Amino acid sequence: MSVSSRSDPTRYGDCPRLAQTWISHDPLRLEDGGCLEHITICYETWGKLNDEGSNAVLICHALSGDSHVARHDEDDTPGWWEIVVGPGKPIDTDRYFVICSNVLGGCRGTTGPNFVNPKNGQPYGAEFPVITVRDMVEVQRRLVTQLGISRLRSVIGGSLGGLQVLTWAIDHPEMVTSSIVLAASARLSSQGIAFDVVGRNAIRHDPYFAGGQYYDGPAPEGGLALARMLAHITYLSDESMRAKFDPTRLQPRVVDSAFESTFSVGSYLAHQGDRFVERFDANSYVTLSTAMDLFDLGDHVEKLAKTLAPSTCRWLFLSFSSDWLYPPSASRQLVDALIGQSKTVSSCEIESSAGHDSFLLASSMDDGGRMIRAFLATEDVHILPTHVSKESSIDEPTSIFYAQRLDYDMILRLMPKDASVVDLGSGNGELLSILRDRGYAPLLGVERDQGQVVHCVERGLPVIHADLDNGVSAIPDQSFEVALLSQTLQSIVDVAGVLDEVIRIGRRGIVSFPNFAHGPLREIFMREGRLPKEEGPYAYDWHDTPNRRFPSILDFQELCAKRGICILEAIYFNSATGEEIVDDPNLNADVAVVALARAVP
Amino acid sequence: MSVSSRSDPTRYGDCPRLAQTWISHDPLRLEDGGCLEHITICYETWGKLNDEGSNAVLICHALSGDSHVARHDEDDTPGWWEIVVGPGKPIDTDRYFVICSNVLGGCRGTTGPNFVNPKNGQPYGAEFPVITVRDMVEVQRRLVTQLGISRLRSVIGGSLGGLQVLTWAIDHPEMVTSSIVLAASARLSSQGIAFDVVGRNAIRHDPYFAGGQYYDGPAPEGGLALARMLAHITYLSDESMRAKFDPTRLQPRVVDSAFESTFSVGSYLAHQGDRFVERFDANSYVTLSTAMDLFDLGDHVEKLAKTLAPSTCRWLFLSFSSDWLYPPSASRQLVDALIGQSKTVSSCEIESSAGHDSFLLASSMDDGGRMIRAFLATEDVHILPTHVSKESSIDEPTSIFYAQRLDYDMILRLMPKDASVVDLGSGNGELLSILRDRGYAPLLGVERDQGQVVHCVERGLPVIHADLDNGVSAIPDQSFEVALLSQTLQSIVDVAGVLDEVIRIGRRGIVSFPNFAHGPLREIFMREGRLPKEEGPYAYDWHDTPNRRFPSILDFQELCAKRGICILEAIYFNSATGEEIVDDPNLNADVAVVALARAVP
Repeated sequence: MSVSSRSDPTRYGDCPRLAQTWISHDPLRLEDGGCLEHITICYETWGKLNDEGSNAVLICHALSGDSHVARHDEDDTPGWWEIVVGPGKPIDTDRYFVICSNVLGGCRGTTGPNFVNPKNGQPYGAEFPVITVRDMVEVQRRLVTQLGISRLRSVIGGSLGGLQVLTWAIDHPEMVTSSIVLAASARLSSQGIAFDVVGRNAIRHDPYFAGGQYYDGPAPEGGLALARMLAHITYLSDESMRAKFDPTRLQPRVVDSAFESTFSVGSYLAHQGDRFVERFDANSYVTLSTAMDLFDLGDHVEKLAKTLAPSTCRWLFLSFSSDWLYPPSASRQLVDALIGQSKTVSSCEIESSAGHDSFLLASSMDDGGRMIRAFLATEDVHILPTHVSKESSIDEPTSIFYAQRLDYDMILRLMPKDASVVDLGSGNGELLSILRDRGYAPLLGVERDQGQVVHCVERGLPVIHADLDNGVSAIPDQSFEVALLSQTLQSIVDVAGVLDEVIRIGRRGIVSFPNFAHGPLREIFMREGRLPKEEGPYAYDWHDTPNRRFPSILDFQELCAKRGICILEAIYFNSATGEEIVDDPNLNADVAVVALARAVP
Repeated sequence: MSVSSRSDPTRYGDCPRLAQTWISHDPLRLEDGGCLEHITICYETWGKLNDEGSNAVLICHALSGDSHVARHDEDDTPGWWEIVVGPGKPIDTDRYFVICSNVLGGCRGTTGPNFVNPKNGQPYGAEFPVITVRDMVEVQRRLVTQLGISRLRSVIGGSLGGLQVLTWAIDHPEMVTSSIVLAASARLSSQGIAFDVVGRNAIRHDPYFAGGQYYDGPAPEGGLALARMLAHITYLSDESMRAKFDPTRLQPRVVDSAFESTFSVGSYLAHQGDRFVERFDANSYVTLSTAMDLFDLGDHVEKLAKTLAPSTCRWLFLSFSSDWLYPPSASRQLVDALIGQSKTVSSCEIESSAGHDSFLLASSMDDGGRMIRAFLATEDVHILPTHVSKESSIDEPTSIFYAQRLDYDMILRLMPKDASVVDLGSGNGELLSILRDRGYAPLLGVERDQGQVVHCVERGLPVIHADLDNGVSAIPDQSFEVALLSQTLQSIVDVAGVLDEVIRIGRRGIVSFPNFAHGPLREIFMREGRLPKEEGPYAYDWHDTPNRRFPSILDFQELCAKRGICILEAIYFNSATGEEIVDDPNLNADVAVVALARAVP
């Protein structure tokens, strides 16, 4: 079906070796107004669909990818996501039926500009209609349905693949149980579009482009190579390029290229450009990058919330710190919009120096793989068994951990039955797991440490990777029965702001904190004239304590009174003895657990 | 002398209207090995050279600029730096004799690829030799000498112009009194080079490039426009592009262009590209951007220190927070290398969202202009009159300011006579100004607040814009007789680390800090169980104090003892009464001023 007049006609246009092809004969009416009479779909599968048809996972590939995600056997060529997909890997092909199809408009077996236009028997070329991500997803939906699958366990993809995942969840909520979106956002930045525009201009300005009808002659390889070189820069990061090219700046690789190779980075780009044109069609590049630039779920949270409203799946968003094409801040906007709708969503902003390409690299996908594995395994967030049992935690009554467990016990005492709970500063999810075991639902963690976020996801808990000092404004007013702040107050910059958030988000806030006016601490300060230091949260030197704030019970009470916050209930205790303190708690208790609510004005 | 076969031969190749031309007949031996038999230099001047020849300021332009920095009269076309240069402006043409010449290799009147090669009577084209920034500066040196100037009051430039300034200071230290470097660094990042490489490849791949010999036919305008579009993206910032194009993403400007204009950002780039080719020569672009990429003073501080060692001028470095082509971190590397050599250097990282182009824009050059004006006016850093007189500051003995002045007085008591001093956390430079009036020299401030840095520069004080928690490691060991840390300890994260730095940098450290174990504070805490709050540095609520650390005198002494720091002298006093405290200072004094040194192990 595909055509190519190049010297080696197999270089692109054909399916990978073990791929299958299916033709959908229903005309495809395109979002932009065009129509394709029938669609050839090239796809590959791994693993087996189970009898219930409940283990299908659809992977969506990025702009320059294809259906070949992973090896089918030892003799096969490696796929583009070997690190994630295969037997025993995070997307375990022993467990899941994995599908990936070449995208509509691509050049590796699925209908694209290099296909013959049935209307005139010529390749479409630049006559190929404008397609959108929504059109790509409709083609995938037809394939999935044809394969006998009515509901996908998960749809997963990065970059342009991530845009497809978002569209799946919005357009076909009834078919999507969970979604994993990597390195993607609601829309590309103007800067990102600008780079794409220059790339497309380079292709169209190539003397061989010939208005896109170049299949009878030489391809516009120079222009496509330029577009690829430029895009490649945006897939890396400043830091990774520094590491890769700075040590050998003026020692270029020896490349046989028409492009400049004075600088080491230039020789690398020349190589990347030259290799790319061997496997990719310039018209496909224009088609797909335009679809990427046109993708737009909205430019602010309110619009996004509306767009994302139909989705019913569980979500996992993975972004990468050095990705400047689809940066963490843009991913966070989607997360915020979903949180604002009380959807079940987890997010992690993975620390990585590898830029946008991080999602393809083993070096940055270790935690990512762990989260994907756990997220896929999570049947239902509310009934997962807890990994850390309550009993095993309470063994050592003399440790700080014992004080923490006491803290948990007091929190449980102030907790309304079966409440929904958000834990601000959820750590590894231990307290949320305990709450889950006791039937509390739904639950949400907010945590700023990546490692702890991974633990939460591995426990099957929804968790947002965010800093309390700026990350919880997206959670809607009164959206949880309880908002928890457990032993976190003392490390917060804007205490009053966070307390306001606690009682805005939760109908009831429950806050536990160390009391720095505890008698023994006062004694030390008074008698010795030294900043107090003791076991527990006070076990730090004055000059390097992680504590930024030193609340006393009285100070806390005063702050609440000043800001119109009611203390509904309070438990004060001595963590050394476990004893509850009624008499002068500001002197005699070292831990306070209080339930708060906004006072009616 | 210049040639152009384009339809409008004046579009480039010629000098600006009021420019002058001088031909240097000495052959120019180029750094890369080539030779140019004679050089035509197109230049403009503003103002008058004074009788001593001491008021000449040389401005070096950036890649796409020319000699036309500013209007010569009301009828003249605006120059590229009107905001900075002119009568009464920061570079005041009523006061200074300002010179700017078109750069070697450019296309606005100075010898470049569009000039005739005397060897064959043809334009140089791509045969124009590889030139470096050093070659450009040699041409400028000839011009300056020809104009009868033996020493420049200042050399100033941004971007490629900044690289020329750096080279002037290194190659001709005897001719340079001061240097102002904007938006430049020791070398371009690999990412920056990569963008340039793609741009040059686009030019060379243009069908009309013809190996650079296109002057007889159509110019490679498409390729040059692509290079310009791409470069233009790197001159802006993600944030500024967002502001400019996001609100009208799919409402492009109406442009008459062969380039894509689907997106608003695309239409803008198309316009920029189309306009650029009317005034710029593709061969010049290749020549100048290659020189920019080849510029390399070294990739680490030690190498840079060696390269910069010959310079003897005073330095001012201005960088811009959103500049990702020559980012503040790269500018800081130069500053660090100079600081490491105890050169006289000031720096400011100006907050701006406008990216690399910030140095050309009024919106981001307000503080920049103030600093340039003051820096140029500073005849000699050590003899400048202090703007704030000592007397006027001491008027109000009851204010916190009075306590601060007391603090200053105690510091002065511990200060060795005529010492060199670095003030870590120098604020607006008040204390340093007092020290300068008393003959202390040399002086250096370190300050993290931009507004305060501007004040320091306006006082004629050298100041580094840096955070104490990570910015002083470049200052060499024992390079100042005194390192001051005045009322800053309580806001520092890594107290022990900064104290170590104080006594590493200074032969003597002088540190003043509030004593949080002062009797009245203890009383409040003991009796009321409240975190103490009083006038002065204690006048903050527990929940939002900028203080991160709460030193007592005893705690401070213990920390010093533990870390091998000797307290050489100490003055403790009560700031309310001004009384010096000898009896139990940890109880009775609220301010401590101590002189420190590293204990011999």
